[in-house]
Amino acid sequence: VARPVLFLTDYGLQDEFVGLCHAVIARLAPEVRVIDLTHGIPPLDVGRGAMVLADAVPHAPADAVYLAVVDPGVGTERRAVAVSAGDALLVGPDNGLLAPAWEALGGAAAAVSLRVPEGASATFHGRDVFAPAAARLAAGEAPEALGEPLDPATLVRMEEDRPRIRPGEIRTRVAAVDRFGNVALAVRADQAPSADLDRSDRVAIRAGSESGARPVRRVRTFGDLGEGEIGVLVDSAGRLAVVQRGGSAAASLGLGPGDPVVIARPPG
Amino acid sequence: VARPVLFLTDYGLQDEFVGLCHAVIARLAPEVRVIDLTHGIPPLDVGRGAMVLADAVPHAPADAVYLAVVDPGVGTERRAVAVSAGDALLVGPDNGLLAPAWEALGGAAAAVSLRVPEGASATFHGRDVFAPAAARLAAGEAPEALGEPLDPATLVRMEEDRPRIRPGEIRTRVAAVDRFGNVALAVRADQAPSADLDRSDRVAIRAGSESGARPVRRVRTFGDLGEGEIGVLVDSAGRLAVVQRGGSAAASLGLGPGDPVVIARPPG
Amino acid sequence: VARPVLFLTDYGLQDEFVGLCHAVIARLAPEVRVIDLTHGIPPLDVGRGAMVLADAVPHAPADAVYLAVVDPGVGTERRAVAVSAGDALLVGPDNGLLAPAWEALGGAAAAVSLRVPEGASATFHGRDVFAPAAARLAAGEAPEALGEPLDPATLVRMEEDRPRIRPGEIRTRVAAVDRFGNVALAVRADQAPSADLDRSDRVAIRAGSESGARPVRRVRTFGDLGEGEIGVLVDSAGRLAVVQRGGSAAASLGLGPGDPVVIARPPG
Repeated sequence: VARPVLFLTDYGLQDEFVGLCHAVIARLAPEVRVIDLTHGIPPLDVGRGAMVLADAVPHAPADAVYLAVVDPGVGTERRAVAVSAGDALLVGPDNGLLAPAWEALGGAAAAVSLRVPEGASATFHGRDVFAPAAARLAAGEAPEALGEPLDPATLVRMEEDRPRIRPGEIRTRVAAVDRFGNVALAVRADQAPSADLDRSDRVAIRAGSESGARPVRRVRTFGDLGEGEIGVLVDSAGRLAVVQRGGSAAASLGLGPGDPVVIARPPG
Repeated sequence: VARPVLFLTDYGLQDEFVGLCHAVIARLAPEVRVIDLTHGIPPLDVGRGAMVLADAVPHAPADAVYLAVVDPGVGTERRAVAVSAGDALLVGPDNGLLAPAWEALGGAAAAVSLRVPEGASATFHGRDVFAPAAARLAAGEAPEALGEPLDPATLVRMEEDRPRIRPGEIRTRVAAVDRFGNVALAVRADQAPSADLDRSDRVAIRAGSESGARPVRRVRTFGDLGEGEIGVLVDSAGRLAVVQRGGSAAASLGLGPGDPVVIARPPG
Repeated sequence: VARPVLFLTDYGLQDEFVGLCHAVIARLAPEVRVIDLTHGIPPLDVGRGAMVLADAVPHAPADAVYLAVVDPGVGTERRAVAVSAGDALLVGPDNGLLAPAWEALGGAAAAVSLRVPEGASATFHGRDVFAPAAARLAAGEAPEALGEPLDPATLVRMEEDRPRIRPGEIRTRVAAVDRFGNVALAVRADQAPSADLDRSDRVAIRAGSESGARPVRRVRTFGDLGEGEIGVLVDSAGRLAVVQRGGSAAASLGLGPGDPVVIARPPG
C-alpha cells in the first residue's frame, strides 16, 4: 500500500508550481495520495516552513512521506536529502527545513543525498528532484535506491529563536500571523511557567516598538473575550498567542512576523 | 465504501489549518476522499458559509459528509453537531451554518451533539472535533457513536435576509462578490416574478447609496452584453446578479457584500 | 481504470467554483482523481491559460484528461469541445485555450462538439458542461458519446506572440510574473541562439519603458547571483527569465505581464 505524501512549500497557489509537482507524482505513482499541508509559507522563509512542518507531525499519518520545499539555494551545492525518522520519511533541501520535523518524529535515523536526475532544471527542484523522490518513496522504494547514504549528524539544523524568560517577563517575537490576525508568539506555553505569570489571569503585553504595556486577560478561547477585546491564550500548536475577538490582533497592535513582543506581570 | 467528505471553511489557504484537517482525516480514515468546496468564506461569516454550502447540495454526491466550519464560538458552550438529512450527513458548529444545507437536503431527520475529545484545543475544533467526526462518519461509523442524540428542532437556524418585493421593485442586498467582480444579490430569480419586472428586457438598478438609478439590460449571459456593459442576469445559483462584460461590476458600481441594491422597472 | 483529470481555470480559489466542479466530478465518477494544475490564471486571460496548460504536458500522465476553462464567451455560440491528442483528451471552450497543449501532445487527432445538457446554466459551463464531460471521459466513455464529431482543422488557434530576434538583440514581452517576482519572457531559450548572445556571460536588459539598458549576468540559477543581484536565466519551462536573488525582479524593474523587454549584447 502506498504511503501518503504530505506536501508543504512556499510556492503559493497563484502559479502552477504546486500543480506540476502533483502531476509529476501522479505520473510516476498514480496510487499515491498527496495531502497539501500548505503552500502559503512566505517566499524563502525556511524557518516558518520548518515550524509549520514540525507542528503537523502529531496530526499526520505515522507513515507519511513529508515533501517540503522552501529552497533559496535551489540548483547550488546544497544537498537534496531524504531522511528516515520514526515510521516516516522526509524529502527536501538540506537547509534546516526538515530538522524540527524529524526531531518531532524521534530523530533522524538515516539519510541519503538524492541524485539529481539528468535534465533536471536548475531552478525547480520541487518538480524535478523532490517530487519524483517523494513519489518513489511513497510507492515503496527504499531511500538507498535514490542516492548515497550520508551521516545524519551532518544534516543542517537551524538556530532556534529562543524566548528570553525570567520571573515575571517573557521577551519573544511574533512567529506567525494567521488569516484571522491571530499573533502566534515564538514561545510555547510549556516554556512559559518559569516566567511565573500563571498566578494572575491578567498579563501586560508590549507589542513591537510601543513604549507602554497594556494589560490584557489570559483566556482559554475567543469567546471568553468581549467583542473586540484583545487577550492572550494558548493556541492550537501550544504557543502563546495574542488574539482579538471578532477582529485582527495583528492589525490592532501593528504586529507582523518577527516583531518583538514582551509579556509581563501587570503592574500593581 | 467510504463516503466523500465535502469540506468548507473560512480558514483560507494561506495558513496550514485546512491541511491539518486533511492530515487528520487521512490518519483516521485513509480511504476517505476529501473534496474542498471552498475555504475562502470571509472570516467568521456564518451566513455566507451557509449560503455556499446549501448551493452545493444539488451538485454534490448524495451520500456526502458535509464538513463545514465557520465558528466564531469555538471552544464555548455552542454545540458541535452531526445532522442526518436525506442520504447525507453534516458536521459542524450548531450556529446556523448547516441549516440551509440540511433544508435543501430535505430537512434534519436526526442529530447528535458531538463529544469533544479529551485534549482537544479550545481554539481549533476543525482539527480536533469536526474533522475527526467527519472522518469516522465517512468511514461508516454511525452518528450515535459520536455523541448524544438531540432533538433536531433545537438546532440553530439563522434569520434569512429576505428581499422586499413589490410590483415593479425589488429591494435587496449584495449576497456575494466573486473573483470576477460579479455581484450576486440576495434574491433568487424564482422569488422575483411577483415584482413584475419580466415584461421588459431592461431594468433600473440603484447600487448602494447612489441617488439615481441606471437602466441596464436583462441578459442571459456575459456575451449578450457589449464590452464593458453592465447588465443583470440569473446566475448559476439561481440568484439575480449584476455583472459587467470583461470587467468588475462590483468595482464599477462600488458594491461590496451587504450593500443595498434596488432593482426596479425603468422609468418611462 | 479511470484516467486522471488535470484541471486548470481562471476561477481562483476564493469562491466555490473550483469546488463545485470537483463535486460534480465526484458525483458522476467517484473513482476519478482530479489534479489541480492551477486556478490562478488571471481572469479571462486565455493566452496565459494556454501557455500554462501546454507547459504541463511533459510532466503530466500520458493518459490525462485536461480540463481547462478560461471562457469569456461562456453561454454564447462558441463551441464546447473535447479533443483527442496522443493518449490524452482535452476538454474546454473552443477559443484557443487548448491548442498549444494539443500541439505539444502531437496534434489534434479528433474532436467533438460537446452537447450542452438541458438545464445547464448560461454562465457556469465549467460546472454544467465541461466538468461532467471530463468526468465521463475520465471514467472511460468515448468522446463520440458526448457530442458531434467536428473537423479538428476548424478548431480555434491563437496568434502566438513571437519575439523579434536579430543578431545581438531579442525584443519580446513579459509572459508571466510568478509569486517570487520572477519575470518569464515570451521567448524560449531554444529560439534565442540566433540572437547570438551566447558568447558573453553578460547581457543588457531594457525593461518596459526604461530609456537605458542595464548589463546583467546570465546565470544558471538564483544562487549564482549575489544577494539582491538581478540576472537572466533559462527557467524551468525553457523560457528566458529575469530574476533577482532574494527579491522580486518584477518589483525592482517595474515589470508586469505584457510589458516589453529587450535583451541585447552589452555595449563594448
